Amino acid sequence: MKDCMDVEAITKRLKRIEGQVRGLIKMIENDKSCEDILIQIGSVKSALHKTGQAILEGHLHHCVLNGIRNGKGDETVRKLSSAIEQFSRIV
Amino acid sequence: MKDCMDVEAITKRLKRIEGQVRGLIKMIENDKSCEDILIQIGSVKSALHKTGQAILEGHLHHCVLNGIRNGKGDETVRKLSSAIEQFSRIV
Amino acid sequence: MKDCMDVEAITKRLKRIEGQVRGLIKMIENDKSCEDILIQIGSVKSALHKTGQAILEGHLHHCVLNGIRNGKGDETVRKLSSAIEQFSRIV
Amino acid sequence: MKDCMDVEAITKRLKRIEGQVRGLIKMIENDKSCEDILIQIGSVKSALHKTGQAILEGHLHHCVLNGIRNGKGDETVRKLSSAIEQFSRIV
Repeated sequence: MKDCMDVEAITKRLKRIEGQVRGLIKMIENDKSCEDILIQIGSVKSALHKTGQAILEGHLHHCVLNGIRNGKGDETVRKLSSAIEQFSRIV
Repeated sequence: MKDCMDVEAITKRLKRIEGQVRGLIKMIENDKSCEDILIQIGSVKSALHKTGQAILEGHLHHCVLNGIRNGKGDETVRKLSSAIEQFSRIV
Repeated sequence: MKDCMDVEAITKRLKRIEGQVRGLIKMIENDKSCEDILIQIGSVKSALHKTGQAILEGHLHHCVLNGIRNGKGDETVRKLSSAIEQFSRIV
Repeated sequence: MKDCMDVEAITKRLKRIEGQVRGLIKMIENDKSCEDILIQIGSVKSALHKTGQAILEGHLHHCVLNGIRNGKGDETVRKLSSAIEQFSRIV
């Protein structure tokens, strides 16, 4: 939600990640080594994880705080808990 | 490297991931909830991780096997070891 | 904190994890294969992660909810945010 | 396998991890904060991951190299691939 995050900064990070994924496709076209591709996939996973952390931090400081203050504590926490679980797993 | 992987299948997966990242940018434009965005970021991380696993598997069965058989064992293993380390971390 | 969690259940899970780590040491003494040891390390990491998730869930539903309701919102959220960041990373 | 790893060093790391897990149980007994417990769980996960990386590195340089040189390439690589997959996931 827009109140929770610096929309411009998050969008910029996601556009950079989109460019990194396109870069991965180009690495395959250009026959780059598997090792370099794997290292680059690791970088993109990290960039996504950090962007998610930034969104989560804003969410906690705004939506969660306000949701609980406005009497929607149980619903707010239930949704948050499920979102964190799915965000932090690697399958 | 092209010998190691099903280039078409891997490229298809990466293009789907590129689309998912674009979808994330659209979710922010359309003011979707932080929880939904976090869950979707988790999905994209998973998709990247699984694509990396598929590349790694092909790499082991082709490049690594051939590299060692062709007398380049030490170099092959050193590069592989470093690539796995950077691929499997989440910072 | 004891109010936040089912202390008995969490302690039981951690004792099982302690036993799994001791099992890992025994696997090395008994010269088990590296692959089996790696797979078992993966299991222990997963068990720790899931135990952390259970603690986090209780924490959100109790401490965080009460902390915010009791006017300590900013402090509660700041500590939570930092704890999640350190819990969800893999370096 | 003992040829693959510095048994003493790996055992020492695992014993330290065993102590950290016992420390976690004590933190719960002593009613430490959930945030501190979560941060400590993150540390133990990291320590396990790094120990696994050290085992994997030895395994690649010894067992995998020798397995492939001794004509057991396919079996060696199949087992390795499955072990890495289970080691690097977080569910």
